[in-house]
Amino acid sequence: MKLLRVGPAGGERPALLDEEGTLRDLSPVVRDIDGALLADPTALERVRFAAGARILPALDPAGLRIGAPLTRIGKIVCVGLNYRCLAAATRAKVPAEPVLFLKAPDTVVGPEDTVRIPRGGTKTDWEAELAVVIGRTARYLETDEEALAAVAGYAIANDVSERGWQFERGGQWDKGKNCETFNPLGPWLVTADEIPDPQALRVRLWVNGEVRQDGTTADQIFPVAYLVRRISQFMTLHPGDVINTGSPAGAAMALPDPKPYLRAGDVLELRIEGLGRQRQEVKDA
Amino acid sequence: MKLLRVGPAGGERPALLDEEGTLRDLSPVVRDIDGALLADPTALERVRFAAGARILPALDPAGLRIGAPLTRIGKIVCVGLNYRCLAAATRAKVPAEPVLFLKAPDTVVGPEDTVRIPRGGTKTDWEAELAVVIGRTARYLETDEEALAAVAGYAIANDVSERGWQFERGGQWDKGKNCETFNPLGPWLVTADEIPDPQALRVRLWVNGEVRQDGTTADQIFPVAYLVRRISQFMTLHPGDVINTGSPAGAAMALPDPKPYLRAGDVLELRIEGLGRQRQEVKDA
Repeated sequence: MKLLRVGPAGGERPALLDEEGTLRDLSPVVRDIDGALLADPTALERVRFAAGARILPALDPAGLRIGAPLTRIGKIVCVGLNYRCLAAATRAKVPAEPVLFLKAPDTVVGPEDTVRIPRGGTKTDWEAELAVVIGRTARYLETDEEALAAVAGYAIANDVSERGWQFERGGQWDKGKNCETFNPLGPWLVTADEIPDPQALRVRLWVNGEVRQDGTTADQIFPVAYLVRRISQFMTLHPGDVINTGSPAGAAMALPDPKPYLRAGDVLELRIEGLGRQRQEVKDA
Repeated sequence: MKLLRVGPAGGERPALLDEEGTLRDLSPVVRDIDGALLADPTALERVRFAAGARILPALDPAGLRIGAPLTRIGKIVCVGLNYRCLAAATRAKVPAEPVLFLKAPDTVVGPEDTVRIPRGGTKTDWEAELAVVIGRTARYLETDEEALAAVAGYAIANDVSERGWQFERGGQWDKGKNCETFNPLGPWLVTADEIPDPQALRVRLWVNGEVRQDGTTADQIFPVAYLVRRISQFMTLHPGDVINTGSPAGAAMALPDPKPYLRAGDVLELRIEGLGRQRQEVKDA
């Protein structure tokens, strides 16, 4: 299923894109798309039945904003340097185990919302990523099968950064990762049954129509199952948590000088096979 | 006011410790202690009136668990190396600006809940910290006055870490900071009006009755007002967000070998002037 949330920011309603491509109102069946729904097989089955029975009212998508596909996100765990092509392009050593950092859930916006360059920021950068949405509490998992069973579904994320603040201010990366609008998510939460192989998805990003990233999740150093399993050794993953699984080569910071960091007026487009597309205009804060 | 939440984990009710030291049920007046309450002067005034009018039912504290004093936390921003005594003890360079990192809100437990050493962890460590609870949206603040006006109140936090995972696993610190139970918070959210000078608070921590940390917030490199102002340059602080403002010298990792990392059976006690005390037993996960 393709689950989404539509409506004004803060006032979204749950919706579903059905197999014919018709947008349908899910609010007669569920109130939120969140960890509680994803962890509840009965509720998910009710959604699936309603979708199949074609009893849900159709919605006119014209002019309708798409929000992030989750009402609440517990935490966002991000993975750095997770594509071989990126390690090769930057001559970075392939990490022995995943590089992890957190991103605050309040960075999340809809897939077509404006991305804002923060005041004083001059190195705002993009990263198209496969986002994994957790559907079952995961801790100390032992097998890839358990790990994939904990995945509710997938979405596109744009892991936006202000590189000057990430790397040139001392300490950890967090100063450059947590501006508002720095994590467009969606358009859909595509349930895992529709993505039989998360390691075979083409990931692309364009800036002003020029392709900047064109990779495949087959190139991930640590695949989704490994990431979920490994992260679960360090912390508990809860339903509604999100993992941003890293980005292929092509972010501005690793391009030749002058690096094409984002400027007001730029337009980003992101696509991942089976997960739809995002489009963001860039503005100054 | 001293706001708190009492009851079983996940089923806490709001409460208040009144000026006579009587525990009173706040649930007739508010449902949650959260960012929405803290950001709403009318609601806070209602609480203050009810507290003064002594119309709130008394609660028997005997056997009543104390939860963390907030129902929901948006994000926890932590500050590393923020005490001069710690920089001196570790011969670390005093940072030119705050070292920031995030901690997931799902690490938060009550002030007397068990702290669990994660499986495979051998370097679990303590840090007594002054926690700042945000009450107003803060972004691009320019003055210390604006910064302090954004503070709803203060609490004790224990910023627990698994040092092996924090420092010896590559990448950022997050692997060692985000285990469940790694952020005891409370017992109270003490509103800012009761803490006229947040830079004059004694901060102490004992392990098995032996004092391990004994510092004062006067020794902070970056005081609370500066931290709130500076963090607001990098990200938006929302009501209900928490800042862990760093810890004085005396954590296990900077003590002589063999470092006294936590073991099952250890008992932690924390006190900050005006903010009460915490006590945690340590167990294996």
